Amino acid sequence: MLQKIDHIGIAVKSIDAAVPYYENALGFKCEGVEEVAEQKVKTAFFNVGGVHIELLEPTSSDSPIAKFLEKNPHGGIHHVAFNSNAITDDLAKAESAGVVLLNKEPKIGAHAKKIAFLHPKSTFGVLTEICQDGE
Amino acid sequence: MLQKIDHIGIAVKSIDAAVPYYENALGFKCEGVEEVAEQKVKTAFFNVGGVHIELLEPTSSDSPIAKFLEKNPHGGIHHVAFNSNAITDDLAKAESAGVVLLNKEPKIGAHAKKIAFLHPKSTFGVLTEICQDGE
Repeated sequence: MLQKIDHIGIAVKSIDAAVPYYENALGFKCEGVEEVAEQKVKTAFFNVGGVHIELLEPTSSDSPIAKFLEKNPHGGIHHVAFNSNAITDDLAKAESAGVVLLNKEPKIGAHAKKIAFLHPKSTFGVLTEICQDGE
Repeated sequence: MLQKIDHIGIAVKSIDAAVPYYENALGFKCEGVEEVAEQKVKTAFFNVGGVHIELLEPTSSDSPIAKFLEKNPHGGIHHVAFNSNAITDDLAKAESAGVVLLNKEPKIGAHAKKIAFLHPKSTFGVLTEICQDGE
């Protein structure tokens, strides 16, 4: 079952440029910056009342985030992620309701989370991630 | 101070078409549908672990949501809203950090909330709402 919104992924050209906005204008504290090599991004996390804001900066021109920034040069909201306590069941439920899965099987993301994406053409345009915390 | 994410606003062409996806594929329950005449939208709300998903369907071709759908015909994430316990202070703080306010003074939105938007060009491309619950 999907329990809560886990995070909102926001594409930015530069984490160094964007972090001061989140810290000074909105008052959130950056919890850390890390690189996720497999997804060719650098990420910065903010905890906002239990839901994370995840800034995503591409580290390569063939990163999916680089492609998003070509279409949205100022940056923008890239995806929403829901936290599941049973990701395999929740993916099967979505698929049986007609959703196209970009990942039939969960893969391992940052912080050892199991993650899978739903195709935005079957989610009314919203790139949607389902994730489950690592054991 | 901004306390939490209040809601994520998602533009859809048709609430009637999108609600079954959120209910059947993701397992969320629609809390209600209402029209907000001033903003020329029909809305549907889902409570996801204390944060709302707000679907927005335009009721007029000059609705801001209609313009968003011209650029994003499948729909997509339109804005993120943060809940404040002192909206006037939080708007002043954002402005002093260089953010352009689309609403210098909060206006009254759905459910008697005070709401104001920040200009996406000063928020790294993310249309951002600050809101405070009505008294």
